[in-house]
Amino acid sequence: MNPDAPDPADQVFDWLDAHADDRRRAGLARQLRPRAHDSDLLDLAGNDYLGLARDKRVMGAAAAAALRWGTGSTGSRLVTGSTDLHSELEFELARFCGTQAALVFSSGFTANLGAVTALSGKNCSIVTDSHIHASLIDGCRLSRAEIAVTGHCDPAAAARALSTRRTERAVFVTDSVFSVDGDLAPLAELAAACRQHKAALIVDDAHGLGVLGEGGRGAVAAAGLAGAPDVVITATLSKALGAQGGVVLGPRRVIRHLVDNARSFIFDTGLAPASTAAALAALSVVKEEPERPARALEVARTLAERLAAAGLAVSEPTAAVVSVRAPSPDAAVTWASECREAGVWVGCFRPPSVPDSISRLRLTARADLSEREIDRAVDVITRHAPRA
Amino acid sequence: MNPDAPDPADQVFDWLDAHADDRRRAGLARQLRPRAHDSDLLDLAGNDYLGLARDKRVMGAAAAAALRWGTGSTGSRLVTGSTDLHSELEFELARFCGTQAALVFSSGFTANLGAVTALSGKNCSIVTDSHIHASLIDGCRLSRAEIAVTGHCDPAAAARALSTRRTERAVFVTDSVFSVDGDLAPLAELAAACRQHKAALIVDDAHGLGVLGEGGRGAVAAAGLAGAPDVVITATLSKALGAQGGVVLGPRRVIRHLVDNARSFIFDTGLAPASTAAALAALSVVKEEPERPARALEVARTLAERLAAAGLAVSEPTAAVVSVRAPSPDAAVTWASECREAGVWVGCFRPPSVPDSISRLRLTARADLSEREIDRAVDVITRHAPRA
Repeated sequence: MNPDAPDPADQVFDWLDAHADDRRRAGLARQLRPRAHDSDLLDLAGNDYLGLARDKRVMGAAAAAALRWGTGSTGSRLVTGSTDLHSELEFELARFCGTQAALVFSSGFTANLGAVTALSGKNCSIVTDSHIHASLIDGCRLSRAEIAVTGHCDPAAAARALSTRRTERAVFVTDSVFSVDGDLAPLAELAAACRQHKAALIVDDAHGLGVLGEGGRGAVAAAGLAGAPDVVITATLSKALGAQGGVVLGPRRVIRHLVDNARSFIFDTGLAPASTAAALAALSVVKEEPERPARALEVARTLAERLAAAGLAVSEPTAAVVSVRAPSPDAAVTWASECREAGVWVGCFRPPSVPDSISRLRLTARADLSEREIDRAVDVITRHAPRA
Repeated sequence: MNPDAPDPADQVFDWLDAHADDRRRAGLARQLRPRAHDSDLLDLAGNDYLGLARDKRVMGAAAAAALRWGTGSTGSRLVTGSTDLHSELEFELARFCGTQAALVFSSGFTANLGAVTALSGKNCSIVTDSHIHASLIDGCRLSRAEIAVTGHCDPAAAARALSTRRTERAVFVTDSVFSVDGDLAPLAELAAACRQHKAALIVDDAHGLGVLGEGGRGAVAAAGLAGAPDVVITATLSKALGAQGGVVLGPRRVIRHLVDNARSFIFDTGLAPASTAAALAALSVVKEEPERPARALEVARTLAERLAAAGLAVSEPTAAVVSVRAPSPDAAVTWASECREAGVWVGCFRPPSVPDSISRLRLTARADLSEREIDRAVDVITRHAPRA
């Protein structure tokens, strides 16, 4: 063998380099930018809508749980990974959202995979809104169900797709608040379409829980659907509740079914005690301070109005997400990094993370943003806007 | 409308009840059994192989991180969810395992989904061992690749499947230590087969990291494959490292590719600071106390030898998992609950969580089990064994 010949093992991943070059040329390469604990950037990019991830009561509860329970749940929820903390959080979340029961997962991603796959299957049709979250899409892909994708926020199209399905069972799957543009699904109309056609409704309320509805009870409660026997809610514990993890909420028999059937529940380590306790403490703050959700909404509306007044193409916020259109992926990246250099951290969403190929800045309102911080954010974002 | 007529909404989930009845009749219904923080059960069921989930240094690091960084990472890793803690953990894990780079996920489940899907795709074949973990199977199902399942721990079959594939690219996917029986994949032979046929090798080392190899560097290092340009390792941070989360380790270009392409990385909230810090602190304990992994192995071998000497059908442990066969799902459940009533907590694995339909008790060794605890475990398990 020629010692100078390239080792074939070195070439196995050569294809990745071509891929990386393509992405770089298209302006789509991504970069991790770790933050420091004392970063002085003004954060309009995270999903800590109520400012609870740094609330002393929530941090204290997490620290205490790590010391009392240990740092890991040590196993899957069905073996050693369920603690009394998990049960308490499930009980309190269900009570807060008005459902019979709840099941905590290690992330919103795995909660969505679990709910969609376990509640559909081969003899089921899944009809979805075209803008649903990636984790719901992956749940559909894993489900072996027949999939039909309908228009965005279009209950008539949903009804048509449900009425022409070939299976007896069906599920309609949607986000409540769509994460990119912050717009709200017509949940009451979708629920009516589902009822007319004997389908279940699964709603991902990741951006609604803690922000929308009375005292932050979520978009499903706001639509009058809390506790409905045919509606299942999924959500994250990592946004308004400032922790980590996901949850599925719904009728008791649905939750029981997930315990027996959701692979992303059965075959995953349970949520860590510190994160479980943090979500529990955050939920109790939300109940004690029901003005926080309203304040997050108010901040979002103020941001949107002022940016629109400055001539930017801004979405109308229905929750805490405000989206500002950019002319191209490159322009969005430049805009976002100029804002960051000026001390304001905003999200930058580009293909393939956007459902419509439109790049944008994505701003998130926080209940604990001050008027001065809002002024600063509006000033910096406006000042660095790309010329039309 | 007849007010006594059943509401169709109530019937949407009626099918779940029939399903639940079937499972109950087959002895396959599952039940969550939350534990108390001061439970005095002897734990031979969790995956805290090195006893680090309750190590004071690890718990202290988690508590301190919750107070310093807040309780959540607040966003996806590509937005606000990457902290200096994540970078440090990735750097240290890669250095420990001897790879160029590492990427931390929120769970081992999402790490496996991300690695398998992003490194395969439509123009790729995936060949797998027949006993791989559910999360790897779901990764394959999501991948759109051509899938071939080969026999268990059979490098010749792996080579045959790789050589007859119809795509240029191929990946072989396996666990290192199989979670149910605790047996070890022939990694060196599998790597040779992959090299001969220009395929990449993905190894889930969830049960090997921290237990096998020099100082716990894992099964891939033990097989002489650390840092190989064609090998990718996945692992959990929730077993030997006592925390939560998952990681993918491998060549730098693989990790870069995952940042750009792994949906379960891009669209998931980053791991919470407390769990990240816990894994980092646990890793540093493993480096300072390299006798811990050896002790976990020794405990596993002692357990297995003594249970076999008592006439039970015990697997030969290659890591910290010891499996004991039961004659039926029902017998396994009864056996496990009798052990639990007698104060010893063992795992009970039944279909569909076992690849071969054989029910068993699954015991996990811990480095911090005392001789007295081992005596007690052996006594209780033997005393409650079903009569043959």
